[in-house]
Amino acid sequence: MKIVRYLDKGIVSYGVIEKDIIKEIKGTPFNKIIFTDNIYPLSEVKLVAPSTPSKILAMALNYKSHILEIRKPPTNPEPFFKTPSCIIGSNEPIILPRGAGLVQEEGELVVVIGRRCGKVSKAEAMNYVLGYTCGNDVSAREWQSGDIQWWRAKSTDTFGPIGPFIVTDIDCSRLNIVVRINGKEVQHCNTSELLFDVPTLISFISQTVTLEPDDLIFTGTSGRPAQIKNGDVVEVEIEGIGILSNPVEEEK
Amino acid sequence: MKIVRYLDKGIVSYGVIEKDIIKEIKGTPFNKIIFTDNIYPLSEVKLVAPSTPSKILAMALNYKSHILEIRKPPTNPEPFFKTPSCIIGSNEPIILPRGAGLVQEEGELVVVIGRRCGKVSKAEAMNYVLGYTCGNDVSAREWQSGDIQWWRAKSTDTFGPIGPFIVTDIDCSRLNIVVRINGKEVQHCNTSELLFDVPTLISFISQTVTLEPDDLIFTGTSGRPAQIKNGDVVEVEIEGIGILSNPVEEEK
Repeated sequence: MKIVRYLDKGIVSYGVIEKDIIKEIKGTPFNKIIFTDNIYPLSEVKLVAPSTPSKILAMALNYKSHILEIRKPPTNPEPFFKTPSCIIGSNEPIILPRGAGLVQEEGELVVVIGRRCGKVSKAEAMNYVLGYTCGNDVSAREWQSGDIQWWRAKSTDTFGPIGPFIVTDIDCSRLNIVVRINGKEVQHCNTSELLFDVPTLISFISQTVTLEPDDLIFTGTSGRPAQIKNGDVVEVEIEGIGILSNPVEEEK
Repeated sequence: MKIVRYLDKGIVSYGVIEKDIIKEIKGTPFNKIIFTDNIYPLSEVKLVAPSTPSKILAMALNYKSHILEIRKPPTNPEPFFKTPSCIIGSNEPIILPRGAGLVQEEGELVVVIGRRCGKVSKAEAMNYVLGYTCGNDVSAREWQSGDIQWWRAKSTDTFGPIGPFIVTDIDCSRLNIVVRINGKEVQHCNTSELLFDVPTLISFISQTVTLEPDDLIFTGTSGRPAQIKNGDVVEVEIEGIGILSNPVEEEK
């Protein structure tokens, strides 16, 4: 199932995509999905970010190819917070802040939590997942190395593109991820290369920080991300999910 | 004005304290405050955390007395995120997680944002404040030094006590803060000693991260925080605001 959030006549609703139409659902998809009688042609509504999380955890160093040779792979997952106000949807612009210097994309599989979960085991963890979407953990590298913590480096407004859909019925353990800037491939990996897989991340995080429905886990990026510049278009494509596409603009 | 959130018959509402009663207000205090006809004796309801923020920024190194001699004072404010799921109210227990090692209190003045603010100047910043409350930036030191980022060190469930009130009509620039464990003073400072004052913090943060109504800024801690242990009671008292009191328990 492909879940979306969409804007129609000033109101944001959840719906499910079937071919070229959106079937509206009542309320949110976190309980039983109940359809209303409303359907909309996909071409006539504006999709917005498919999640409005209360928190976002993102992973540092979760692909071997992303870890600099001088650094050892971590022994535990290494999360950090992105704050929800940085979330944007597909097609919305990433704004490069003045004075930030080098800004890079990081294409990632994003897990959407479906049910409240605290202190769950790896074996139970997947019962708490609603689905998956594409994410771009946009990162300002000078702030990332110069500030004590990665607050603005990772959470400046617009630094959290996600979307376009939440896909629920998919095996997340073996998905190709490709990132392109202006059509040119800059990152390529498969989720089978994750150092800590999705059940491990959920279980580890939930031992100390309770996860709520709609919370997000950015699972980490691979290889060497590239600089994004004014006028670029960045795409994160994940097999079986879709393409998250965002133009890049300078702060005015 | 002293704003509270309180629980009565399973429903949480906002109210304003006048002497021994709470006067209920309609909706939230972020627009015009409109009273309903309901009043409650303060002794008959349970106060809960006075804020349900969408994000929390907290300051590292914002009192000279807290900076180790080997470290220079920062040239910019140094925020980090606490995630909202760590918030608890006064009298609720701080739970010491298993395996965390040394956990300490950090008593702090907390700013409650009243209106959405992005890229505001220092001169305008105070127009966006609703009021102030007491906060305890509970910190697990081994995780703080051992993890790449301070996620669980600062945001483990229950690590964000705030309350008991939001006080709106107060000058935040010269308030005494005292922290006591089991009645014995362990921290003592005055907000006049802040390296970056409240207008500077709001202006600096809002240049990159938009602040929303009810968002919180923990302004930083002073001196040398102390260990908190099972059975302790930690109090953060701020002049003109009140006393935030939390018992400490071990994870069961």
